[in-house]
Amino acid sequence: MRNTFGNVLTVTLFGESHGPETGCVLDGLPAGFAVDEELLQADMAKRQGLPELSTARREADEVRIVSGLYNGRTTGTPLTILIANRNVRRGDYEELADKPRPSHADYTQFVRYEGYADRSGGGHFSARLTAPLTAAGSLLKQMLAAQGIRVGTHVLSLGDLSDRRFDALAPEISELSGKNPPVLDDAVMAEMKAAVAAAKAAGDSLGGTLETAVCGLPAGVGEPFFDTVEGHLAKAMFAIPGVKGIAFGAGFDFAGMKGSTANDPFVNIDGAIRTETNHSGGINGGLTNGMPVLFRTVYRPTPSIARPQKTITLSDGTETTLTIQGRHDPAVVLRAAVIQDAMTCLVIGDLLASLYGVNWLEKINR
Amino acid sequence: MRNTFGNVLTVTLFGESHGPETGCVLDGLPAGFAVDEELLQADMAKRQGLPELSTARREADEVRIVSGLYNGRTTGTPLTILIANRNVRRGDYEELADKPRPSHADYTQFVRYEGYADRSGGGHFSARLTAPLTAAGSLLKQMLAAQGIRVGTHVLSLGDLSDRRFDALAPEISELSGKNPPVLDDAVMAEMKAAVAAAKAAGDSLGGTLETAVCGLPAGVGEPFFDTVEGHLAKAMFAIPGVKGIAFGAGFDFAGMKGSTANDPFVNIDGAIRTETNHSGGINGGLTNGMPVLFRTVYRPTPSIARPQKTITLSDGTETTLTIQGRHDPAVVLRAAVIQDAMTCLVIGDLLASLYGVNWLEKINR
Amino acid sequence: MRNTFGNVLTVTLFGESHGPETGCVLDGLPAGFAVDEELLQADMAKRQGLPELSTARREADEVRIVSGLYNGRTTGTPLTILIANRNVRRGDYEELADKPRPSHADYTQFVRYEGYADRSGGGHFSARLTAPLTAAGSLLKQMLAAQGIRVGTHVLSLGDLSDRRFDALAPEISELSGKNPPVLDDAVMAEMKAAVAAAKAAGDSLGGTLETAVCGLPAGVGEPFFDTVEGHLAKAMFAIPGVKGIAFGAGFDFAGMKGSTANDPFVNIDGAIRTETNHSGGINGGLTNGMPVLFRTVYRPTPSIARPQKTITLSDGTETTLTIQGRHDPAVVLRAAVIQDAMTCLVIGDLLASLYGVNWLEKINR
Amino acid sequence: MRNTFGNVLTVTLFGESHGPETGCVLDGLPAGFAVDEELLQADMAKRQGLPELSTARREADEVRIVSGLYNGRTTGTPLTILIANRNVRRGDYEELADKPRPSHADYTQFVRYEGYADRSGGGHFSARLTAPLTAAGSLLKQMLAAQGIRVGTHVLSLGDLSDRRFDALAPEISELSGKNPPVLDDAVMAEMKAAVAAAKAAGDSLGGTLETAVCGLPAGVGEPFFDTVEGHLAKAMFAIPGVKGIAFGAGFDFAGMKGSTANDPFVNIDGAIRTETNHSGGINGGLTNGMPVLFRTVYRPTPSIARPQKTITLSDGTETTLTIQGRHDPAVVLRAAVIQDAMTCLVIGDLLASLYGVNWLEKINR
Repeated sequence: MRNTFGNVLTVTLFGESHGPETGCVLDGLPAGFAVDEELLQADMAKRQGLPELSTARREADEVRIVSGLYNGRTTGTPLTILIANRNVRRGDYEELADKPRPSHADYTQFVRYEGYADRSGGGHFSARLTAPLTAAGSLLKQMLAAQGIRVGTHVLSLGDLSDRRFDALAPEISELSGKNPPVLDDAVMAEMKAAVAAAKAAGDSLGGTLETAVCGLPAGVGEPFFDTVEGHLAKAMFAIPGVKGIAFGAGFDFAGMKGSTANDPFVNIDGAIRTETNHSGGINGGLTNGMPVLFRTVYRPTPSIARPQKTITLSDGTETTLTIQGRHDPAVVLRAAVIQDAMTCLVIGDLLASLYGVNWLEKINR
Repeated sequence: MRNTFGNVLTVTLFGESHGPETGCVLDGLPAGFAVDEELLQADMAKRQGLPELSTARREADEVRIVSGLYNGRTTGTPLTILIANRNVRRGDYEELADKPRPSHADYTQFVRYEGYADRSGGGHFSARLTAPLTAAGSLLKQMLAAQGIRVGTHVLSLGDLSDRRFDALAPEISELSGKNPPVLDDAVMAEMKAAVAAAKAAGDSLGGTLETAVCGLPAGVGEPFFDTVEGHLAKAMFAIPGVKGIAFGAGFDFAGMKGSTANDPFVNIDGAIRTETNHSGGINGGLTNGMPVLFRTVYRPTPSIARPQKTITLSDGTETTLTIQGRHDPAVVLRAAVIQDAMTCLVIGDLLASLYGVNWLEKINR
Repeated sequence: MRNTFGNVLTVTLFGESHGPETGCVLDGLPAGFAVDEELLQADMAKRQGLPELSTARREADEVRIVSGLYNGRTTGTPLTILIANRNVRRGDYEELADKPRPSHADYTQFVRYEGYADRSGGGHFSARLTAPLTAAGSLLKQMLAAQGIRVGTHVLSLGDLSDRRFDALAPEISELSGKNPPVLDDAVMAEMKAAVAAAKAAGDSLGGTLETAVCGLPAGVGEPFFDTVEGHLAKAMFAIPGVKGIAFGAGFDFAGMKGSTANDPFVNIDGAIRTETNHSGGINGGLTNGMPVLFRTVYRPTPSIARPQKTITLSDGTETTLTIQGRHDPAVVLRAAVIQDAMTCLVIGDLLASLYGVNWLEKINR
Repeated sequence: MRNTFGNVLTVTLFGESHGPETGCVLDGLPAGFAVDEELLQADMAKRQGLPELSTARREADEVRIVSGLYNGRTTGTPLTILIANRNVRRGDYEELADKPRPSHADYTQFVRYEGYADRSGGGHFSARLTAPLTAAGSLLKQMLAAQGIRVGTHVLSLGDLSDRRFDALAPEISELSGKNPPVLDDAVMAEMKAAVAAAKAAGDSLGGTLETAVCGLPAGVGEPFFDTVEGHLAKAMFAIPGVKGIAFGAGFDFAGMKGSTANDPFVNIDGAIRTETNHSGGINGGLTNGMPVLFRTVYRPTPSIARPQKTITLSDGTETTLTIQGRHDPAVVLRAAVIQDAMTCLVIGDLLASLYGVNWLEKINR
């Protein structure tokens, strides 16, 4: 379905980095939910990151909802989000039209769209498109919160700096409230800020990892094989520019574990069926088991760096050198937590709607 | 779509571990392709693994194609694969009906299907269902090979034993031919066999990782955001029981890299646009860039172990102990390479069909 | 999605007229429903029609459910129906390989599948494929009946003979019980039988119309624009070989009506909101309004007739003559009511599941 | 998928009658097509109908394309169409909030969206939403025309007035050029205008039928059973408010025909395989046969009439009377031809893209 995803709750994404409007259409929403537009706007601000640590491009990112909202409540018909691009500078990208930036989507979209794509600033492939996704996911986050389902993401690592892991049985989502970037350990947060400033000064960029937790999901959500919770979340995370890997629960550590230690024994806690450990990251056989869902993603270092790089000329294939002039971000991972939360909420909303129906909000099985 | 996946080339999966038939329906195939049924059957044998290292359950796994094949060629209408279950022993699972096996899908499917699922041997969630998937993917592997697209997977690690990595610019797929389990380094293969035998003797199980390469894909395949090549492959890999993580190219190593070293410079090699390194794993912006596609997956240790484990009783919630009596596999990762190849081929076939149309076989853009 | 239809409740269809097995996979079913397999088999018998009035090909049409059913109840995982072809006579169709039958799918599938389709007896396009669809729909009919939703179809016309119309406010579905062919007026039924016998004797065939009613649906089912109840039912009816038109409520009579007489005024009947007339056929704006859903379909005369017909030779394009030797049916419309019921039930089940979730059975809003 | 339709070429529709913006997102378009925006705008004018014969609401209907178009050509990424609502008068509809208009979608959407829909002027169910659909289809019409595929629709009947039928072998599409309303026979056109004026004066409305032809399609387009050309076109036509029936080729006349006269014999005309008659409407077995595709639709009389009507009060269920004050259209069928063309073009584009791939424009098989 290309730029539409979801089975029952769907998102259709559109726009280009330097076109007039970016946006998305959210369909399959329950009717009657009162949307807090200030909370949406607050998430848009989080996505912009700290001015001193991210791109020099500043956008108001004003979210306009032009359909599907009436008297402040969702109508149940398609809800359309528009976010205008105001700080547009196509001129910055003229040299790039013929010189693809290494590890960007310039070359691949040149081939895919037979040379006709608007590639200024990455065009439709730009991280700019995560703005409407963030707004859409933020709306879902409100719906989930109303049902006691909380989603949170922190910067688990940046370069060689690491935050502490979430407690797998009781992730500390609430500790992240108000933090930007969201890091559990304040000392690590300070070191991360310093590392980004250093990378920026060196004209370079840094990679990192994010860890997300979803608490409060009922057991039995998801499907076997092709529609696993892992599969849906993974597909959605790879929609975020820069993500190159994802792992659930113990993740790649499972490779060195034995079944006798990796398995999560069932226990009865106050009448509820729970597991004693949570190596499975809350998912067995592709379905939630009632424990917190936990996963980590890895973000490559931003491909836009201020140093000269080898590339080729598309028009004649000759090798050449490129120095990217545009505005860029030395560590997208610091801004990505709110985007990762948003994509997670969209997936969870779709999974719940697929199971409980369009008006899933009050029908969740507990 | 639950048990159907794919956009243009679709697979619908059905069956239970101890039911009469497992199978799948492949739709959207190009017409006129001559299928080598012996090659299909050979992949079924690979999936069974080595008798001394895997489950004691032996099945003939005879692949019957009951529609969509005429005079040895695909007709273009739905191709249906049936594989009968012959070695059925529902009695082995009676105790399990009320005692969910830790880290299996017993509890989650009990909740999801309100107690009505046939859970013998995992039921519909059993790795037994990878038999028809392997047959379907094996058929696609033949189609891709006819277009010069080769797919190969090796056991990259088992417990603390590691094979060497694929050469990211020229993966050694052909070296794997005839090896079972597929390991590039023969000495490591021998050690892996010994490690599995030891785990089996100890009533325990081992995890590991697989690495897959796809060579010969044209550039420009895939879509941005929701239908990335990474996203599609990830969603498909999580369909394989036991997979808990996936990473492309440099994967989680990106977290510690800088943009200046992580980026893949473009070069002109004999008139073709290539990259000097392949940290991106052949994918930029979600689309293929013409380099080999490379990814790794992690498999958790088989949850079925011969040791006593803590669990609860579903009927009354009391804590109890369980010792699994059935037949099991101490290291599914050794058998999974052919399954991972199969799922990869199904995804690649769908991506090509989505781009080039139903009769993509001879229309691939080079 | 080609041979899969439905959004939440999906059906995947496979098989050829003279291949070993036809069948379908039903996915997205609620778990725990007790299936009456005798009722399924009874509907298979109805589909065969009366021996003296239909094709000479007789099949046992034994329905085998090989997955998704456990202890007589749906498991919620894919339910697979297989129906073997036993009375296979490929030899009957040898002449046809090069001479497409007029108004059959021979020529169109020759082009679509580039000559590789198995076209014996229509191959995958054969009305034989309505056997598994009938079984699948019959299962849904049981589920709907358990919720008070009844579906019924009668032969409204055959050639120039007409049954009386359903009462639009209270369709007489129960009067059809046990009738084969289902005709409200017994005298008309007798005339229809005689007309078919005459057509058969003349080596010719007859067209006709069917009328279907769905009673007991709640209001508010369906979606605007692309997923209207009319649109879904229409798409499903055109899946039945021979259907060339469909109309809801007053249908084509609307063309000559005025708004003042066509509109259905709302009334309060014993506290329920109903309409005084039902020209709308139970649907407004694409959604059910709580009144009976009513529609009529038209079936072309069976294209297989025993008379010589003009055609061309595919191999060289020359004009030639063809006399069809195979077994055929002079009036498929007499056998089609149970198929039309089945397709209707599959659509209604999917619409309910799309709205109320997978376990819609007990969640229907009244 | 609710407000998204299409398999490869998709349309996502949004907006409400009295909200700020209506629009749609077209995805899966081929890249590089030069769009003539003046032609789009000309189709928007046709959709408005003649001022003296249609609604008093006048909108500029300026089409803004805010993504997916660059230097006048499609980029291949999502193309978004916005059409602002300027002549908004929510006050006209206050009485209607509690009194559903007979045969409108007021009551059904009240139930479906649990009272939260913005129902002013029909809200999301309004024919106003056909404005963006017309623009989207008009773009596809340009693409199809460039491949020699022409689509045309005329008013076949209005009340008891009838235009002549299209010649089934060579529909006179070009004769409709510049006509508004499009009627083949000029004398009939004049009579139709007079009939609408009379209906308007009487505070009443008229129904009618449209006939559409698609010429130049290759044979072999479409799929059997669930994705027939008939099924796709039907589902799309029922998306147009007021459509209650559709029939292909001889349509409901088939009921009275015999196979010997209904069948279309194959002939060789100048080396091309054609049929001597075209009762099948260009479709056999759900696939195109290379002849013109022909179908007719019926439109109910506009439910909005100026006379008092019986209805109920939603809040307390009491019976009452309603006189609709808003602006309305006495014969939507006169304005609907351009909408029906548009929906047809969207379906044909999707069918071609599903078969030939995303860049189908130059790959159509002839």
